[in-house]
Amino acid sequence: MLDSFLTFINQHTPDLKHQPTLLAVSGGIDSVVMVHLFHEQGLPAGIAHCNFGLRGEESNADEAFVRALAARCNFPVFVSDPDVKTFSKSHSISTQMAARELRYEWFEEIRRSSGYGWIATAHHSNDSLETLLLNLARGTGLPGMCGIAPVRDHLIRPLILSNRAEVRRYAEENGITWREDRSNASDDYQRNKVRHHVVPVLTDLNPSLETTFNASAERLRAANTLLDEYLGAWKSRIMRDSGGSMNIPIDEILGKSEPIYRLWYILQDFGFLYSQVRAIAVALHGKPGKQFHSPTHVLLIDRALLILKAHGEQSNEGQLLIEDTETPVEWLGMTLCFEKLPSAGALDSGPFAIAVDANRLTFPLMLRKWRPGDIFQPFGMAGRSKKVSDLLIDRKIDRFEKDRIVVLLDGNGEIIWVVGQRADERFRVGETAQEILKISIGAS
Amino acid sequence: MLDSFLTFINQHTPDLKHQPTLLAVSGGIDSVVMVHLFHEQGLPAGIAHCNFGLRGEESNADEAFVRALAARCNFPVFVSDPDVKTFSKSHSISTQMAARELRYEWFEEIRRSSGYGWIATAHHSNDSLETLLLNLARGTGLPGMCGIAPVRDHLIRPLILSNRAEVRRYAEENGITWREDRSNASDDYQRNKVRHHVVPVLTDLNPSLETTFNASAERLRAANTLLDEYLGAWKSRIMRDSGGSMNIPIDEILGKSEPIYRLWYILQDFGFLYSQVRAIAVALHGKPGKQFHSPTHVLLIDRALLILKAHGEQSNEGQLLIEDTETPVEWLGMTLCFEKLPSAGALDSGPFAIAVDANRLTFPLMLRKWRPGDIFQPFGMAGRSKKVSDLLIDRKIDRFEKDRIVVLLDGNGEIIWVVGQRADERFRVGETAQEILKISIGAS
Repeated sequence: MLDSFLTFINQHTPDLKHQPTLLAVSGGIDSVVMVHLFHEQGLPAGIAHCNFGLRGEESNADEAFVRALAARCNFPVFVSDPDVKTFSKSHSISTQMAARELRYEWFEEIRRSSGYGWIATAHHSNDSLETLLLNLARGTGLPGMCGIAPVRDHLIRPLILSNRAEVRRYAEENGITWREDRSNASDDYQRNKVRHHVVPVLTDLNPSLETTFNASAERLRAANTLLDEYLGAWKSRIMRDSGGSMNIPIDEILGKSEPIYRLWYILQDFGFLYSQVRAIAVALHGKPGKQFHSPTHVLLIDRALLILKAHGEQSNEGQLLIEDTETPVEWLGMTLCFEKLPSAGALDSGPFAIAVDANRLTFPLMLRKWRPGDIFQPFGMAGRSKKVSDLLIDRKIDRFEKDRIVVLLDGNGEIIWVVGQRADERFRVGETAQEILKISIGAS
Repeated sequence: MLDSFLTFINQHTPDLKHQPTLLAVSGGIDSVVMVHLFHEQGLPAGIAHCNFGLRGEESNADEAFVRALAARCNFPVFVSDPDVKTFSKSHSISTQMAARELRYEWFEEIRRSSGYGWIATAHHSNDSLETLLLNLARGTGLPGMCGIAPVRDHLIRPLILSNRAEVRRYAEENGITWREDRSNASDDYQRNKVRHHVVPVLTDLNPSLETTFNASAERLRAANTLLDEYLGAWKSRIMRDSGGSMNIPIDEILGKSEPIYRLWYILQDFGFLYSQVRAIAVALHGKPGKQFHSPTHVLLIDRALLILKAHGEQSNEGQLLIEDTETPVEWLGMTLCFEKLPSAGALDSGPFAIAVDANRLTFPLMLRKWRPGDIFQPFGMAGRSKKVSDLLIDRKIDRFEKDRIVVLLDGNGEIIWVVGQRADERFRVGETAQEILKISIGAS
């Protein structure tokens, strides 16, 4: 454990003696062991602890524990209680993502303002392997296969060469106490499955799994860095900033190897997902004029150019992105609930619920007010298109109610549901559907 | 199933109607379903079956089954009974690797000589996912994370978009019969662990795992292709053929990003492993003159150049490479056995067995006759070096016995054991050893 810690410092951050490090400490075993190692080795450090207050008394006990630890080590301590719920609402992201973003933003703020060189988090090699396996299960590309980076920007992971068992043994041998962490219940559920049921089988196949994995992750990160170098140079050669928009010549994409991957490499920075980019690549062979939306940008396929523009402020406020369907979503006084169903027979639909083929959906989904010009393919109309405005006229929806009509779109910009009014044909549950998602509304 | 099959053809091989395909058929469910699909769709084909005769009567019953299947479909049938054991011995590789190589070589031979366009194997998406997970457990780089390629050279995998359950359902619905395959017992053991214990947990996290995985594998293959394009261009710019050797300017490696990966990219074609390349990269910073061996080549670190030369014929015959320690190894009338042990205490050593720190070993190991000039660090001599020739003189080994003395080396060219005489200090089981390998000899 101590060996791996010193090897890490020697390889990556020999300057730790000369510049204090900001340690991110939850109070769990990993972060407390990290504090112990810094203290033992006489490395200058400070402690940062976030109290999101999401678990009431327990959160406050964690904070007290960390404050006491910092006092014993004579390390300065910083505690923050950011308002996760407001942030997650205003940025249209999940509580968990909000907590993550806020935490790292705040660490970086302290690092700069208080003269720390690095921010250290206590991830070890099992965290890294579990992350890779979770990414693999959920779908990923090369960056998701690289595990947790030992060093990135101002972040370091000095325990990454050790595994969970080594951290635990070190804690026990040194009489270290810690707080059990019960947050992130949903992510923990999946991670625990990987930890307790997948990793042991792989360890049975290879007793040195974590060491082997560290070597593999190092190779994959090198591959990723080199690919980044290659595509980064290509990107900066072909992208042109023309004032209000960024332009990409279409023949620079289509004339090259692996056009989808190249296009995704450019568009990922503008919030587009790989599955969307696949649809965009298909559209490049069709008529010009088609538009695709990401949370922040719109992409227009022009004759010879792809044109990227930022959304106006207004359009960002009038919409809500839905990254996954794990939890219900609240917006404009309405709750949208999701439920996975085994077969279509079980569904009792009605105007406040629809059933869709889950595998047809591209994420993120988007909820927004309907707009003039919105077109969809009403369920049961054999693929014919209809304007949403015509539907509302047909249904004699009055002016005030009309202002409150909302549409649910998938990541390719196709309407899934004119909410509470009519489902779209394209997402219907066909005979080959393997998974059905029920989407329903209720007042919140 | 049929849908995925037609999608595959449409995407990758629209010419299947016009040129016959050679189907690799073991008689197992996957390959029989593939034959059925080709026959049903009226696609021209022939069948190739290898009878290695490794399982006696069962192998012959498989052959009879495949011949009858071909007759029913009116497909030409080719059967081969290659001598795996001789091939594996003469090429110093395991029976399983020999079987694999011989099979593909023979398929390619028939393809060219009998006018087939493609060779088709019946791998499906679960095979691909299992392969990735096995590679991950054993240690791998980007190529090992790409799953099984849908198309490579003249090979196609037309079932790769379907999963195991779909293949089985198709077989049952169409009243197809097949032979249960019991070969590859050791690989099957590991694969079955992944199949029955890892994949179900991941499927529980994501019910559309195979579809998701196909998309991830496609992305990773695109990344791999692009990286290959980048490094391939770089390699052909810097490598110089100077008659009997290939030269690489050292500053073209050290002056670049990710030097280990770049060096491995060049040296992998000459039989060097990633772990060896790591040691070579370290040696680049040391004194010139060091040599490294792969099964086929020797690499010399000169002042400003890396110089690669093929081994002479003779040196190839006088050595045996050991890729893993799963099975005993026979060579020159001697058997080398391997056993993993929990702790050093249990080992009763003596001259015919040694215990080494398994994690110190770099593969492939090599067995060869000792040579004048061989140097090692005798066990217990605190790191001092000694010539093997001096050891043999000290021990009064007579001339005839001397000719039969063999050394075991690890992949970095370091002597592990002067076999039957003296172990090396560098591989001793230290206090931090996590895994111990016992290596012993007996007459075969």
